[in-house]
Amino acid sequence: MDKYKVTHRLLRQSIKSLVNRQLTSNNPIYRFISAFPLGNGGRNPQMYRSFGSLATKVERNPSFSSLNSDDLSYFKGVLGEKNVVQDEDRLETANIDWMHKYKGFSKLLLLPRNTEEVSKILEYCNSRRLAVVPQGGNTGLVGGSVPVFDEVIINVGSMNKIIAFDKVSGILVCEAGCILENLISYLDNQGFVMPLDLGAKGSCQIGGNVSTNAGGLRFVRYGSLHGNVLGLEAVLANGDVLDMLGTLRKDNTGYDLKHLFIGSEGSLGIVTKVSILTPPKLSSVNIAFLACEDYLSCQKLLSEAKRKLGEILSAFEFLDSHAMDLVLNHLEGVRNPLSSAVHKFYLLIETTGSDESYDKEKLEAFLLHSMESGLISDGVLAQDINQASSFWRIREGVPEALMRAGPVYKYDLSLPVEKMYSLVEEMRARLGQSANVVGYGHLGDGNLHLNVSAPRYDDTILAQIEPYVYEWTSKHRGSISAEHGLGLMKANEIFYSKSHGTVQLMASIKKLLDPNGILNPYKVLPRSILSYS
Amino acid sequence: MDKYKVTHRLLRQSIKSLVNRQLTSNNPIYRFISAFPLGNGGRNPQMYRSFGSLATKVERNPSFSSLNSDDLSYFKGVLGEKNVVQDEDRLETANIDWMHKYKGFSKLLLLPRNTEEVSKILEYCNSRRLAVVPQGGNTGLVGGSVPVFDEVIINVGSMNKIIAFDKVSGILVCEAGCILENLISYLDNQGFVMPLDLGAKGSCQIGGNVSTNAGGLRFVRYGSLHGNVLGLEAVLANGDVLDMLGTLRKDNTGYDLKHLFIGSEGSLGIVTKVSILTPPKLSSVNIAFLACEDYLSCQKLLSEAKRKLGEILSAFEFLDSHAMDLVLNHLEGVRNPLSSAVHKFYLLIETTGSDESYDKEKLEAFLLHSMESGLISDGVLAQDINQASSFWRIREGVPEALMRAGPVYKYDLSLPVEKMYSLVEEMRARLGQSANVVGYGHLGDGNLHLNVSAPRYDDTILAQIEPYVYEWTSKHRGSISAEHGLGLMKANEIFYSKSHGTVQLMASIKKLLDPNGILNPYKVLPRSILSYS
Repeated sequence: MDKYKVTHRLLRQSIKSLVNRQLTSNNPIYRFISAFPLGNGGRNPQMYRSFGSLATKVERNPSFSSLNSDDLSYFKGVLGEKNVVQDEDRLETANIDWMHKYKGFSKLLLLPRNTEEVSKILEYCNSRRLAVVPQGGNTGLVGGSVPVFDEVIINVGSMNKIIAFDKVSGILVCEAGCILENLISYLDNQGFVMPLDLGAKGSCQIGGNVSTNAGGLRFVRYGSLHGNVLGLEAVLANGDVLDMLGTLRKDNTGYDLKHLFIGSEGSLGIVTKVSILTPPKLSSVNIAFLACEDYLSCQKLLSEAKRKLGEILSAFEFLDSHAMDLVLNHLEGVRNPLSSAVHKFYLLIETTGSDESYDKEKLEAFLLHSMESGLISDGVLAQDINQASSFWRIREGVPEALMRAGPVYKYDLSLPVEKMYSLVEEMRARLGQSANVVGYGHLGDGNLHLNVSAPRYDDTILAQIEPYVYEWTSKHRGSISAEHGLGLMKANEIFYSKSHGTVQLMASIKKLLDPNGILNPYKVLPRSILSYS
Repeated sequence: MDKYKVTHRLLRQSIKSLVNRQLTSNNPIYRFISAFPLGNGGRNPQMYRSFGSLATKVERNPSFSSLNSDDLSYFKGVLGEKNVVQDEDRLETANIDWMHKYKGFSKLLLLPRNTEEVSKILEYCNSRRLAVVPQGGNTGLVGGSVPVFDEVIINVGSMNKIIAFDKVSGILVCEAGCILENLISYLDNQGFVMPLDLGAKGSCQIGGNVSTNAGGLRFVRYGSLHGNVLGLEAVLANGDVLDMLGTLRKDNTGYDLKHLFIGSEGSLGIVTKVSILTPPKLSSVNIAFLACEDYLSCQKLLSEAKRKLGEILSAFEFLDSHAMDLVLNHLEGVRNPLSSAVHKFYLLIETTGSDESYDKEKLEAFLLHSMESGLISDGVLAQDINQASSFWRIREGVPEALMRAGPVYKYDLSLPVEKMYSLVEEMRARLGQSANVVGYGHLGDGNLHLNVSAPRYDDTILAQIEPYVYEWTSKHRGSISAEHGLGLMKANEIFYSKSHGTVQLMASIKKLLDPNGILNPYKVLPRSILSYS
């Protein structure tokens, strides 16, 4: 897995430097933040206009209290002076999301060191009706991990201990604040592998991963966190600690409530401990980079790969020619490993198994057959770790290339595989010359990243994209958020993917677990369905 | 997978004939039913003494109505005359569970043909406070699928259509009444495999499998239904239809409520449709039958197998010498494939992959290495399908051999693998010569089937087993029901595996979704926590 580490570290570093440049320069993204003042900006303390939707306004819930000096004294008594943060620079970082799209105005960041402290904080906040935002690595993409107004930020990053690891079962128990990359390294040393890997792994925390049901690069092989997380400890809004920290593969005793907290984005409770099943590390990784001339061939190749590569298939990613062009034009040192001819689609196929020579032989036979049957028009198999990293760099470089290219409207959609690319083509026809429509993503999981790269942020373009994209996705029973969650950005769009009755039941469960609505308010569920008392 | 079919069919047939004999003879199990009259038995219409626990009594919830002629007219109007069953023979079958341990006294069996009918029935029953029992194949082992008193039985077996199958994604959508074996055959013809397989597959239905979160034989490879079920349609107690029938691998839009219905044993709603992810069929299956001389070696072998066989390991089952003796003594035509020497532990290891010769070579190398390092003392690799079936017959024959041996106290426990066999040894020491303590199960999943075979059902023996087994399991953070569920049998024992706060929240969710408590009453949750209004 060393090749991953290298690729991801590079990616992370380059994105970090990009973000730093945004903060100090006049590049398009920074200008965009200025053009749409996020949060109250000191002008209207009750209103917030969110990015990306034409008419989304949020009002501060009038039932919430504001911080006073007694509150601060209480928190200092529980956490100690240094874990009650009011420093402006530190608050600035905690108030702004990683993409610099969302900005809150919290005056207080709390750093609990254990479950008991989280419990005391929440019990107090609930009794005082102080709204809170649970925060981990703050790497989310939908504004879920930063305040909207003046919510108290509770960051669990200090709770970062590995509690236990069982080498027989491969079951890891740890605190919520453990950084994903640290867990990956720890497990690697033990001869195991984390069933979750993300570009943001250097910063994101397992508690946040679980709370957002993170997907990522190993999903096609190991599946969802709903399958891999064996247990959780979570603190409810009233301070009650729910011990669901099972370490068993099988447990059919009553309702499996941990699933409520997986993917509910911190709106039902704060996850404080996690138990997760980790598979043994396999030594052999092979990567191929291929070209297809039509989308039907991509689909057929996926079916074939699932069958022929079966148990060793570990990634099946795709990008279209528009995405490839962006990567070649905007990222330094990246070249197309295939012939200079332009291909319509590029695929990255990875296998992970326990036998180097056998796995390679198998992948080669698969590729030869696919070439002979005309499914692929060109292809190359990585001969060493550098080549493998360079293939991953192309696929993983697409978001970065898009950011460098200028303003971009980003959509993270799940669709039936056979329908997936039709949406990209329709959007291209709708938008004509006004924007560059790019399609890439996790083909193996039916997860399309549809990106519209435009010369400027423009309500006319946006009106041609939304609600069309959401309606199209809904018509094909897709999901308007495959892996990013709803957060603030898409809370009001939930009905495109979920039935009214289901959302109503979600709201009832929210009301049951958090009657005062203090946990991560304005997020996940639509404002229309959550009445403030 | 043909070998499975053969084995299971044989097993099913022999168990069926065994059950038939119980009904007409004076064998121990039948006598047991007579000794503990289940249900009211015509004597005390308000009381029910359940099997297995010393002092479990259930009272009929006084808030429930009793059937009247208006009710029958209503149901006939909705379902048609022939789907409103009052015939005594058919009711007898629907009132008694598969093991003939639990018997209810329902006077009415309803057979809806679609979701709309289920909705109308439930809406009516809820308004009339008529309690109901959702029933599928009625193959459960904890009394969850039969009435306790006079609950109306709603059997969804007529809803057995396959709605859609997508050969690209492998996603199957079907009605809840589809029999598991029919789905397995259907998928087999399409070149796919159901990620769930059970001994009861000839009768059990997918809606029941999902409602009970069935485990089974493919769990070690494909994991839990929480990971494989992509969507559900369920009808709530008030008749509301919840459409959660997603067909996407990834969907992070709001709380993932389908998980509430997976494993809640029909107490929160009736599952009417299921969408499930199925992997492509792999052609190569290899099976080894091995002997170990101590439990530590079994554990080490499991670790080694996970690492060395990695992606092709598909079963890791074990039985101890006591279980082997029972199989050899009570089942016809079964012989020990290893030398006549008595071994302490026997293991069945299965691999499933896509390359016959390579997989076999790999398994052989693993076995050779394990033999050389002294982990296994003997072993044999199946040379053909008959031999493979005969190995499975030994492992799968244990429950049948136990039934033939006489009265048996059965426990289905999840425990940390390293602790698992200590409980068997402790029970053996506790019970001495008074009973035969047998351990077997799914070692790869940490799932122990602890069985105590006794000369007779005897409160003295029972008092030595319970609550000791539950307390021991609880002390080691195990589960008192790994895959069977709680049903009526273990509803009151839930606190051994779940914290008080968690159970309290389960009860709140039950109250939220089923305020009148009409869905599968007296089951899953402890009576102490569910107050009847």
